Amino acid sequence: MAPQRVDVDQLKRGSSLAIARAISLVENEEPAAQALLAELFPLTGRAYRIGITGPPGAGKSTLTNRLAQQYRRTGLEVGIIAVDPTSPFTGGALLGDRVRMTDVENDGGVFIRSMASRGSLGGLSRKTAEAVDILDAAGKQIIFLETVGVGQSELDIAAAADTTVVVLVPESGDSIQAMKAGLMEIADLFVMNKADRAGADQAVMALQMILHFRGNDRRAPEVVKTTASEGIGIDETVKRIQEHRVGMESSGALADRRRLRVSDRIRGLVSERLQSDFWSPQRKQLLEKCVGEAMEGRCSPYYAAELLLRE
Amino acid sequence: MAPQRVDVDQLKRGSSLAIARAISLVENEEPAAQALLAELFPLTGRAYRIGITGPPGAGKSTLTNRLAQQYRRTGLEVGIIAVDPTSPFTGGALLGDRVRMTDVENDGGVFIRSMASRGSLGGLSRKTAEAVDILDAAGKQIIFLETVGVGQSELDIAAAADTTVVVLVPESGDSIQAMKAGLMEIADLFVMNKADRAGADQAVMALQMILHFRGNDRRAPEVVKTTASEGIGIDETVKRIQEHRVGMESSGALADRRRLRVSDRIRGLVSERLQSDFWSPQRKQLLEKCVGEAMEGRCSPYYAAELLLRE
Repeated sequence: MAPQRVDVDQLKRGSSLAIARAISLVENEEPAAQALLAELFPLTGRAYRIGITGPPGAGKSTLTNRLAQQYRRTGLEVGIIAVDPTSPFTGGALLGDRVRMTDVENDGGVFIRSMASRGSLGGLSRKTAEAVDILDAAGKQIIFLETVGVGQSELDIAAAADTTVVVLVPESGDSIQAMKAGLMEIADLFVMNKADRAGADQAVMALQMILHFRGNDRRAPEVVKTTASEGIGIDETVKRIQEHRVGMESSGALADRRRLRVSDRIRGLVSERLQSDFWSPQRKQLLEKCVGEAMEGRCSPYYAAELLLRE
Repeated sequence: MAPQRVDVDQLKRGSSLAIARAISLVENEEPAAQALLAELFPLTGRAYRIGITGPPGAGKSTLTNRLAQQYRRTGLEVGIIAVDPTSPFTGGALLGDRVRMTDVENDGGVFIRSMASRGSLGGLSRKTAEAVDILDAAGKQIIFLETVGVGQSELDIAAAADTTVVVLVPESGDSIQAMKAGLMEIADLFVMNKADRAGADQAVMALQMILHFRGNDRRAPEVVKTTASEGIGIDETVKRIQEHRVGMESSGALADRRRLRVSDRIRGLVSERLQSDFWSPQRKQLLEKCVGEAMEGRCSPYYAAELLLRE
């Protein structure tokens, strides 16, 4: 199927159809995507990007849903990119999380898109960042990036977000597991969701203790209790996100974070091009030969790499 | 502290001290590491590499421990690399998994080494692969690569292993979560550990059902029940690993897997060099300038990348 043309003017005016088509271009790696993104780039940098991550079952979708509604009430345009690092063969169908998003999906002011890995985990982080740029250029003022904290995806989210919210539940050892999974480093704010469950207060205290003893100069992130399914704690969460945002803006940290993001993006593009330029058919053939020799123990990968670089 | 010299002859004879020093060279990215690895490479390819992964708390260390003991009983030399993708600031100290490994640690035939990320997740997979090569060259015949199935590390393990064992426990939804986390694709064999718990049979059936409906040509991996803490199911697990090995050897799949591994290694080394050669001080300066202009919306990352590549 030929890619459908994206009406850039419509997109700039926030047309959901134009946004959806633009993201499809990016997702399917259509050649037209790069030119479109280059055209849209000057319009980006206006949206605030909020990452939502945490272990499976923590209620991330419900929380995102509630937060989106809250921002909509203040008249802001909201976009949601739900990143699904699911295995290629399930295609995300088993997750079902998005089914629970219908409350906001019927609201014209919120654009929601799920992005799955579709067999190549590698390109997902770049595609996600590009989809967020599209939403930003389309005038969305608050953009949520939501992903389950497994795989590489939560690090990608943190890199792409201005404020990263890590959602936990008061189950025993949950915060320890979050620490193992590296969620502690990326959190600007913690939400202890399902706080109506037994042990919520102890879990918050345990988390605060861990954060206190990190032995890190950075100010410990706040911990907010929510029961997202009931809408409890949503005001407080929005307030804390706003505090983090103001703090980041006044300290210059937000500008630094965004500068690093642009720098990483350029580096990534350069890296992709260096590789694709390097691997000519001749070099690929030589690689095959080297691999054969290495398998027989007649050549090491280090020598083979040297040989290829000299070629 | 200056790196200690590695006695290559001692290493080839399996000296634990020489192995430990060699892995430290690799871990600390000492300049001498590359030359050593190139020298050792022709001695590799003799060991069989078994990856052990799964969610936190599945009992991976205990299982690895028992399997290692079993292989030792048949007179084989065994090595274990436990990869800890923990966050940099905890330094792996909170995991405590390795404490339970003392049974095998007191046996001279088993070399155990934990490798943590130490602040840079990026290099961990390469370092792990290099540590395995060192064990291989040192005459270890069975090498276990163990990691918790969070982060990128379980994919790295699967890429580095000949047979990948995914360990689950019969908790509700565990197999669904494993599927979410992409563990299904990488499994050559499933172990349902803690099978003395309630619901173990149902969990095995649910898993087999999921595997059956994958809609994939590949033969579904076997599911073995174990209670590793009691030593139950260990014989069966070893038998299934052996079956997978024999099948891989006779079909040529093992040779293909190893060829791909060498090819990826060479590509990785080439990629690292292309980048380090590219980013001269001049280009870094130009990058800074481009980032500044991009932040002001006067230049897109795509244009900046083009500019840098033309420079």
